[in-house]
This record gives sequence, structure tokens and C-alpha cells, in this order.
Amino acid sequence: MVLAKYSVGVDFGTLSGRAVLVNVETGAECASAVLDYPHAVMDRALPDGTPLGLDWALQHPADYLEVLRTTIPKVLQLAEVSPSDVIGIGIDMTSSTAMPVYRDGTPLCFTEEYQSDPHAYVKLWKHHSPQKLADRMNEVANERGESFLKRYGGKISSEWYFPKLWEILMEDEPLYRRMDYYIEAVDWVIWQLCGEYTRSSCCAGYKAFWSKREGYPSKAFFRALDPRLEQVVEEKIACPVSSIGQKAGELTQSGAALCGLLPGTAVAIANVDAHVCVPAVGITGANQMLAIMGTSTCHVLLSKEERVMPGIGGIVEDGVLPGFFGYEAGQSCVGDQFAWFVDNCLPASYVEDAKQKHQNLHEYLREKAQCLKPGESGLLALDWWNGNRSCLVDFDLTGMLLGMTLQTKPEEIYRALIESTAFGTRKIIDMFEENGVPVDEFIASGGIAQKDPMTMQIYADVIRRPIRIAASKQGPALGSAIFGAVAAGAARGGYDDPIAAAKAMGKVLDLVYEPNEEHAAIYDRLYAEYSILHDYFGRGENDVMKRLKAIKAEVQ
Amino acid sequence: MVLAKYSVGVDFGTLSGRAVLVNVETGAECASAVLDYPHAVMDRALPDGTPLGLDWALQHPADYLEVLRTTIPKVLQLAEVSPSDVIGIGIDMTSSTAMPVYRDGTPLCFTEEYQSDPHAYVKLWKHHSPQKLADRMNEVANERGESFLKRYGGKISSEWYFPKLWEILMEDEPLYRRMDYYIEAVDWVIWQLCGEYTRSSCCAGYKAFWSKREGYPSKAFFRALDPRLEQVVEEKIACPVSSIGQKAGELTQSGAALCGLLPGTAVAIANVDAHVCVPAVGITGANQMLAIMGTSTCHVLLSKEERVMPGIGGIVEDGVLPGFFGYEAGQSCVGDQFAWFVDNCLPASYVEDAKQKHQNLHEYLREKAQCLKPGESGLLALDWWNGNRSCLVDFDLTGMLLGMTLQTKPEEIYRALIESTAFGTRKIIDMFEENGVPVDEFIASGGIAQKDPMTMQIYADVIRRPIRIAASKQGPALGSAIFGAVAAGAARGGYDDPIAAAKAMGKVLDLVYEPNEEHAAIYDRLYAEYSILHDYFGRGENDVMKRLKAIKAEVQ
Repeated sequence: MVLAKYSVGVDFGTLSGRAVLVNVETGAECASAVLDYPHAVMDRALPDGTPLGLDWALQHPADYLEVLRTTIPKVLQLAEVSPSDVIGIGIDMTSSTAMPVYRDGTPLCFTEEYQSDPHAYVKLWKHHSPQKLADRMNEVANERGESFLKRYGGKISSEWYFPKLWEILMEDEPLYRRMDYYIEAVDWVIWQLCGEYTRSSCCAGYKAFWSKREGYPSKAFFRALDPRLEQVVEEKIACPVSSIGQKAGELTQSGAALCGLLPGTAVAIANVDAHVCVPAVGITGANQMLAIMGTSTCHVLLSKEERVMPGIGGIVEDGVLPGFFGYEAGQSCVGDQFAWFVDNCLPASYVEDAKQKHQNLHEYLREKAQCLKPGESGLLALDWWNGNRSCLVDFDLTGMLLGMTLQTKPEEIYRALIESTAFGTRKIIDMFEENGVPVDEFIASGGIAQKDPMTMQIYADVIRRPIRIAASKQGPALGSAIFGAVAAGAARGGYDDPIAAAKAMGKVLDLVYEPNEEHAAIYDRLYAEYSILHDYFGRGENDVMKRLKAIKAEVQ
Repeated sequence: MVLAKYSVGVDFGTLSGRAVLVNVETGAECASAVLDYPHAVMDRALPDGTPLGLDWALQHPADYLEVLRTTIPKVLQLAEVSPSDVIGIGIDMTSSTAMPVYRDGTPLCFTEEYQSDPHAYVKLWKHHSPQKLADRMNEVANERGESFLKRYGGKISSEWYFPKLWEILMEDEPLYRRMDYYIEAVDWVIWQLCGEYTRSSCCAGYKAFWSKREGYPSKAFFRALDPRLEQVVEEKIACPVSSIGQKAGELTQSGAALCGLLPGTAVAIANVDAHVCVPAVGITGANQMLAIMGTSTCHVLLSKEERVMPGIGGIVEDGVLPGFFGYEAGQSCVGDQFAWFVDNCLPASYVEDAKQKHQNLHEYLREKAQCLKPGESGLLALDWWNGNRSCLVDFDLTGMLLGMTLQTKPEEIYRALIESTAFGTRKIIDMFEENGVPVDEFIASGGIAQKDPMTMQIYADVIRRPIRIAASKQGPALGSAIFGAVAAGAARGGYDDPIAAAKAMGKVLDLVYEPNEEHAAIYDRLYAEYSILHDYFGRGENDVMKRLKAIKAEVQ
């Protein structure tokens, strides 16, 4: 009898880090452990009280080390697995979540000189203060007709790498000069583990304009932004990009001591939390869409073809699985939109009734909403409560609801909001298909996929495809463990490539939501109406939403 | 010293009748009394249990007599006024609220033969079952290019006189043959008082297609509807139309005994409840708009000119005050729309907080909503929760709200709904002015005008006109009393014409809502956006609301 081998996946989220110990042969999750970051998200002040500006959102890199130090020993202990049976480790994180470090990898914020300097800390993905710099980048890239822009749907987000880096130069040039590298925090964690400074193709591709064929944007582009940025790639990155699926290195003595594993354990190239879910649901090839449905939804899709299309979030070769172009799209608010409704629009009588029935409010509403037939409410919504991230790529768009009468009930509005997000997903699928990237299968993961059968059935009816559901509730950590097993290689009991690993370790539930033909036929008609309004309000025919936002900004 | 003279006004509403005793010289309301109708609205069964169809709504004429019998003696007693000091009486009612009677005025429902026949009772204004007959009338009138249709904005309502009458012929031809007249209930009450069968120009004009110049529609039109209707005017009306402001007659012995007044007391030609409010606020001439703002809003406006315009509710010469064309327009839901929001969309936390502060929910919401500046919410609504009664005249239109974000609060939506009804009012004012009927003044009455200063200020800012408020909370009854004083004439201590009477007896409060120029400038911009959406959804560019209603009807 051969002893089972294990891989560890660690997922660094916005508020906590989670480790999962996974059986490499079966993909079974043997144990997991979570640590809330001691510093949480710093959005008002640094630990020493230094105040932060509007729209700032920082993390403390010490928290990542604390996650490694506590959760990995914990999962070994829980599963009664010896460190010697762990063959690999993979890491993922939110992105772009980046910080300045010295040449030896020490974060500037760890030194006394910079501990009171906000720019020295990790700028979290949702650190939105460099919005104006992102806008300026868009202008310059557009004016110059930069080809890289097409891979990002024509629009640069303030959440990405270069706006955060440029902000340091603009606001704190001495620190900019002093740092040796500006690094994705997840690449930094890999460095702490295996002593190797690497850059993941997933982070670099989706968040830093890098592509396998063209590399980073040209010096001329960076010079046009700011002459001081001309050499930014050489000066502040200075590292080749490694494809996800590769091995970053092996645990050093100090890396092994940090996480309670053995030196020599294989460490995978870092990943981004959404993209790493793809192998976790067993996707191993083209044209299977994964939708990670939570407060917002992220869509990931593989293809052998590179089809540049407007309205996409990002296209990265080797960005998700090696050998494929990985496409990313998304919806800015999904669960958030339903939560907004429950928080702001649910009458007292419903809350009281739910309480009496010991139901949570979403369950209670679902019970009422699922009795409705498609089209029965006469309502139609545009799902833009937080703008539109894909297809239109416009954050100044806002929500719309129509069809209300004096008889309209709350559950009808709730269902219309859910349906609107399903129509939004169908728009994204249509965008891919119209641009030559078929979507043959649809797999959902995330909280909504796990907990909300009514919504999943509506989605199946609207998109007219069967929907399969991720088996794991901790998809990113499982995905990272899969990459850990690949880093170890078949010779050490793992796998030689991510496809084989995903086939063995990734899983969906037996449950399938099959489209109901009768409902789908009605949804086709509602979707046609949605599409007319989508284009009317979203493609410039009536920019009322933007004009209202401008008036709002003016009077405030 | 001359003893004061009094006039009695009686207003017959949907659920109750109210009498007011008014000092003829000053317009002071000395006493009032209300009686809830013993039979209320019969919408499920007759008193003997005979069931009623869908959308039926009946009244019992005995209830009107009971109101006269109880409330008039009551106001005399309360004010310690002798019947000999009462010089006149005026009556108003909802309309078209009509019933079949024999030649002597006896209602068919008073006889044993018909007491179990629903068609023998009073069909209340909101008796909507003849909708299909109204639709058919619209078709025929349109096909034939009937000129009368233009005076009604091109659309016949199921709430009017002829659809109710035709319904009897279609469903109960024997009863149709047996009745001698089909009479407005308010004209019938006048008959009971003074023994004269009269027809009010207000009811006939606004509800039965009559005009001073053209009379009723032609025999050819009625024949086209149904050959049996060819002689309907001669057969079932058979009565000249008297202008409001005229005297119908004097109290007979039995009429006087019924209401506790003296025989010979002057009785005015009947009125309709909305239109009769005009003299009650002291309007005596052209271009002063009265808006009666409650669950819905009714607008009445006088002009020396007849300007036929699409989108109007009705234009009747001598319909409101003699010597003027009286224009009627309206908004199908105003207070109803705000009540819908409070009933269906107000979160439990707000309800709880309002309770703690001992505020009613509208007060509580207003307190929050009035802190908002115009444009601050970024929201815009179309006020069509119950269709659109004027300008578009389309009951298949539905509500719309746009501009929502995850930060949108309930009070912002509430305020947007209020603003949308103000924009709806401005549309109606614009419609009049674009068609050559200026609106120089704006006076509001009804519950909202009395109780909701925030809404009235928003209206003043949106319509850019000062708003005055009716002094009386019982405008229809006061208006009827004014017509009672006119029926008495100056020689008996009253007035010789309604203008003089309205000047002396009609009143507004000292309070004026003056437009705030800064707010008005922002509302101009929001109104421009409202107008674009109003036309886009309302004038055929995108009939999504109708298509959604059609789908809704199909799946139900």
C-alpha cells in the first residue's frame, strides 16, 4: 500500500486567508483552516494612526505570513497528515494587490523608515484612489492606439497594477526611487516560501498589460504617460514572467519553517483567486465557461484562439491554463444587488413574517419569488447597480427597473433583479459567441451557486444551457492545491501538467440545472426587451444615466 | 341688522355623503356632517345575496336619501341655524354614477320586480366591467372620425355614461326596454328634491359626450355601435341639458320634508365632485389651474377659447363655470404611488425607527427626503404605476425608475416618486400651454395639498409657479353650497352668478409655495431627461411596457 500524498492550497482573500489540504489522487479536501487578517483592510488609518485618503484600501504583508504560520500547521494537525506526505504548495490571492520591496524582498513597510508611509503598504485590489491616473492611462493608450488595450476591452481599471505604481511616483517620489521592485503580493509570498523572485503570468497578464507575445507596453507608451516611467519595467519589475502551471521553486529552510512543511517541497507559480478556480471544477479545455457567482460574478473561459473583442475584461495566453488563451469577463454586482434590495426595500411585514417562520430573508423571498412564472410580474431590470464591467465596460451606468404597477409586490422586484443578472450573463455569453469563442458548457461556483437553487434554475432557463455546480466550496484554495501538485510533478506523486491534475482533482456536483423549455421561450422574449434597453441606455442613444450622475456630482 | 343667510352643499363621495352649511356672505363653513353609506360600495353581492361579476361596483340610491335625511338636519342643529335662513342647496357627486329609473323617477331597484337585478342599481364611476364596450366605442368612433372624440383626448373611458348604459342593453335587454330613463344619480337626487328632471351640463359634457354646440353624438354613430342604440338619446335621456350655475327648481313639499329645509328653497343644477371645487378656491376666470391632489390628481382649468388637443380628459363649454370652456386633465396615481412605496418598499429598520419617534411613515420619510437636494439622488422615475391619464392617455403604461446604485436609499426613491408626479403635472401644464391655453396660476386642494409641504414645495420648484392652497378641506361640498347660493339669486340673499359667488365664498390660504430658483434650475434639467423618457416609452419608440403587459397577461 502506497501512502496518500497531499498538496496544500492557500487562498488569500480580502479579509482572511484560508489553507486547504487536498489528497492529490482524489482531490478530496481533508482539512481546511482560516485566519482573519489581524490588520483586516486598512481604509482609514495605518497601525500607527497615520490617516489614509479617500478610497484607500491597504493590507499588511505581515498578515500573509501569519496565515501561513497558523493555517498550514493547523490543516496538517486536523487531518493527521505528516509534512513528509505533502508534496507541493500553491498560492493564490486577490489581484492586483501589490507593494514596494527592497532588492532582498523586504517590504518597505517592515522598516522603521517607512512604517508611517501609506505608499509603503500593500495596495489592495479595491484601492480606488488612482482612478484619475487610470483615466489618464486610458486617454494616452487610446490616443496612441496602443494594441495592448484591445486585450482589455478597451479600458484600463484603477484596480490594476500600473495605476497603483504610478500613484506612488506622483505622490511620493522618494519612496518610488527607494524601492527596488513593485511586486504583486502573491508573488512576494512565493518569494518568502522558496526564495525565488518570480512573476506569475496570471497577475502580469490580467493586471499589468503583459502578454506572452508582446511583453509589457512599450517604453514610448510609458514615457507618454510620464517621462519618469520610461524605464519602469526594467527598474521596478526586472523579472521574467513565468507561466502558471510552472514550479517557482522549493521550500527553503526559512520558508519550510514558516509554514511547518519540509524544505524541498515544491512551490507553484502564483495564481489569481478567480482564475485558479478553473481547474478546481475540472475544466481542462476550451469553451467551458466558469462563473464565480458571489457579491459580483467573474467569468473565465478558455480558447485555443485569440479573439480580441470589445467589452472583455482581459485575454491572457497561458493566463489560466497553459496552452490556452484565458478570457476574463465579469458583472460588477450580482449578490450585492440582491443584498441591496433586502437591506433597503424589504417591507417590515415580510421581515416579521420571515422571523416567525425562522427563515433568513433571502430564503423567505425565494419561497415567494419561485412561485412566479417568467414574465408574470411584468417587470424588467437592467443589472447596473454597480455599473457594467463587461460588454459595455462603463462604471457610470446605473440600475433601472420598469413595469411597476400599484399591484407590484416585493418578491416580484426581487425576482426581476435576479433575472436581470441572468440576462447580463447571457449578454456576456453572446459577446463571446458573436466574436467566435463558443460557450458550450456552463459551470457555476461561489456562494450563489451553492446556496440558491432558484437563481441557478433562472440562469439555466435564461442562458438555455445546463448548469453544473462546483463541488468544492473553497474553489480557489483547491485550485491552488492542484497547481501545488503540478509543481511537484508526477515523479514525486503529483502531476506533470495542470490538465491531468484538474481531471483527477477538480470536481462538480452530480446536480445539473436543466433549462425548462417553456420558461426559456418566455425568457427569450424578455431578453430581447432587455437587449433593446441595454443598448439604448448603454451604447449612447440616451446617456441619461451619465447625465444624472454628473448632476449628482455637481449638487453634492 | 340683517340675519345671516346660509346655503347647504352636499357632496356624495364613493363611500359617504357629506353636508356643509355655509355662510353665504363670507363663505365660512359653519357646520358639517358625514354619513357612511349603509350599503357602502356593493362589489361582491346585492343586499339579497345576488352575486356580482368581476369589476362590478354598485351603489344603492336609498343611501343618498339617507344622507339628505340625516346630515342636513344635523348641520342646522350644530350651527343653530333655522331652515328659514337657508336660501339654497347644491349637490355634487362622483360621475358617471348612473342608474335606470321609471318615468316618475322611481329607481328600478326600488321595485320588487328588479331588486335582485344588478343592472337595476347605481353603477358607480369605478364600475369597470364594460371595458370591452368602451374599447368598441373607441374603435367605432375612430373609424368614423367622430368629431366629439377630440374633446376627450381621443379616448373613451369605461367609467363614462354610455358604456354603462350599453352594458345593460347587452346583458339585460328586458330591463333596458323597461326603464324610461338612464340617469346620473346626482341628477336623480336633484329630481327628488325639486321634482324636476334635469341634466347637468357638467355630467353630460364630461361623461356623456354632450356639447353645447353639437349636442350628443349622432344617431348614425349610435347605430354603428348597435342598431338598437340608434334612438338612445331620445329614448333613454329625453331631457334638455341645463348649464351648471342655473337653478333646477325649488324644494317641493316632499323634498323639503326629506332634508328638513323649507319648501321653496332654491335647488341648483347638479355638479361633479372635482369640477365643483373650482369656485370653492375662488377661481373666477381663465387660466387658473386647480389641481385636486389625493390618491390621484384631477386638473381643472378654464379658458375663453376652445382648443382641442390630444391628451386631454375632456373639454366642456359651461362645464365648470358658465361662459368658459372647462378643461379636465388628470394623473392616474399620485398619493397611490407614494402609498405603494410605503406599503411595499419600506425597510423594517425605517418602520421601527419611525415607531420609536412616534411619526407616521410618510412624515418620517419626508423628514429624510427633504434633506436631499434636487438631483442629489441621481434617480429619475416615470409616474405611471397606474398608467397615464393625460397627455398620453394610455393605461397600459407602467412605472419606471432608473439611476439606482448600491448606495441608493429608500428616501431617495420616495423623493424620486414624488418628483416624477411633479414632472407629470408639468407635462400637463406644458400640454395646455403648447396648445394655446396658458396656465398663469396654480392652486392645489385635496389631502396632499393640505398635509404635505415638502411635496408642494417640490411641485412649485418643478412647475416654476407659485402654488396656493385651498382654504377648505371639504372643497366639493363648499363648491356645491356656492352653486346653492347662486340658485337662490341675489334677490333672496344669494348671488346672481357663480363668479360673484366664488369671489365672495371661495378661498385659498395665505400660504404660498414660491419656487426656489436654484432648485428650479436643476429640475429643468431633470425634467428634460423625464421628457425624453416620457416620449421614448410613451409615444411608441419603445413599447416595452405594453409588450411586458401582454406577456404578463399571457402567462397568467
